[in-house]
Amino acid sequence: METYLECLPCFVRQALEAVALTTDIPAIQEQVLKQVFSELGRIDLGGTPPVMGQKIHKIVRDAAGVKDAYIKVKEQCNTLGRKMYPELKKRIIESESPFETAVRLAIAGNIIDFGVKSHSEVIDIEGAIERAIVADLGDVVAEFETAVGAANKILYIADNAGETFFDKLLLERMPCEKVTYAVRGGPIINDALIADAEEAGITELVRVIDNGSDAPGTVLEQCSKEFRGAFDAADLVISKGQGNYETLSSIDKDIFFLLKAKCPVIARHIGCAAGTTLLFRKRPITVTKD
Amino acid sequence: METYLECLPCFVRQALEAVALTTDIPAIQEQVLKQVFSELGRIDLGGTPPVMGQKIHKIVRDAAGVKDAYIKVKEQCNTLGRKMYPELKKRIIESESPFETAVRLAIAGNIIDFGVKSHSEVIDIEGAIERAIVADLGDVVAEFETAVGAANKILYIADNAGETFFDKLLLERMPCEKVTYAVRGGPIINDALIADAEEAGITELVRVIDNGSDAPGTVLEQCSKEFRGAFDAADLVISKGQGNYETLSSIDKDIFFLLKAKCPVIARHIGCAAGTTLLFRKRPITVTKD
Repeated sequence: METYLECLPCFVRQALEAVALTTDIPAIQEQVLKQVFSELGRIDLGGTPPVMGQKIHKIVRDAAGVKDAYIKVKEQCNTLGRKMYPELKKRIIESESPFETAVRLAIAGNIIDFGVKSHSEVIDIEGAIERAIVADLGDVVAEFETAVGAANKILYIADNAGETFFDKLLLERMPCEKVTYAVRGGPIINDALIADAEEAGITELVRVIDNGSDAPGTVLEQCSKEFRGAFDAADLVISKGQGNYETLSSIDKDIFFLLKAKCPVIARHIGCAAGTTLLFRKRPITVTKD
Repeated sequence: METYLECLPCFVRQALEAVALTTDIPAIQEQVLKQVFSELGRIDLGGTPPVMGQKIHKIVRDAAGVKDAYIKVKEQCNTLGRKMYPELKKRIIESESPFETAVRLAIAGNIIDFGVKSHSEVIDIEGAIERAIVADLGDVVAEFETAVGAANKILYIADNAGETFFDKLLLERMPCEKVTYAVRGGPIINDALIADAEEAGITELVRVIDNGSDAPGTVLEQCSKEFRGAFDAADLVISKGQGNYETLSSIDKDIFFLLKAKCPVIARHIGCAAGTTLLFRKRPITVTKD
């Protein structure tokens, strides 16, 4: 998905958020933001939104001299996920269709995304859960369950810290020996890193790798050989969240996208209302041409 | 009121909106926006938000080669105001307290503001009216009515096109011979100009002047001698909207502010929730010291 001009105010908001997380001295915040603006005046707007976001957050980190502006935010995300995990696990076990409930909860967890929302805004996780439980997902859940059962190698591409606990609920319903769980290769917004996968206990459950890139999505040409190998070898890819959708939606691969379409630009691109709980399959082009 | 860093994403959004109104060619839009970013990288962030907004909209107009990007938007605002005026006038006449109803409707009309909202968003004018009718304004309406009755020279500072029709409803309840109605001196967002005051029939009702400045507020040091004269001579100033509040809130003058606090930064500055229907008095410092 291309970067639209209407993404730009959101990038500025993200830069502002990131700056505010690194320092509370207005003069320094202003200095960093001006640097961001200068770069935006020169930058190539081509590429997907995560490629732009990657550039902007790098400017902020470099200018502010910090490695990870969102480290505390991610701690809060993990605390939220950890707190919710036991009751959600119980809800899955007691539900009529545990796999389906786990899928719905994994999508709901995608609300924990500070690329779209301000970190100071309250995340309505309870609301997201209840909406996900009743969302009309059509027949895709059954198709997804069948595909998971039939696949030999599954690559589950994570999105955010905290959301990892919701991913774990779904991973526990999958054939773990077939699954590789991939996180980002470096700090970017509140996207999950290896440490966050560990926090959620996912490293004890499935093989976990990072993708070697600090874009807030999956920019294949930036990814490590290890990740590319896992991607190519997988006969089923599970893609969580907006950033992965933005970067993988045009890739020729069998991908199930699980996300909350939080941003109006992405919702329009997909053809749904903003806020929609989504599960959909993008079959490889070779298959859809049959 | 100073410009806060969190105003910056909003300025970028405004620039984007203004660019989109002048051309639908993405390459030109991108070029103009990059110019805005370059300027934002150099700009002095001092001054009130309207001073910043004035600079940004000038960049867009100059780069896009247009005199008034919002001319069609203002036509739509005037059409909306004109359409609503008769039934609202009837509502005022039939109400228990016509002056108070007119005040409430004049504040509701401040929702027609494209500095805060996107011009593509639907304006919930009906909702704004019903909320304004029941809003808790305390004893200030009575105080305002007394002040209007006691004043010798009243300066009513307008905000937006279309809102002018709502202003007219209030002006009709005032001693018109004492009132001067002031609009902006040049095109800026959907702010009212002389033409918009004429459209609403206000020029037939009271003396109308422009302030000589194209800031989306009242930046006194930029204003014409005529406006400054009217401001200094007035023993009561009525200030509509956010831009006028942002620029006049620290001026030593008896001012009644009538506005919808639409933006969260302004709402925080005032100490209310975003969206609040507001009528409040800022007495001159010399009086409050008594």
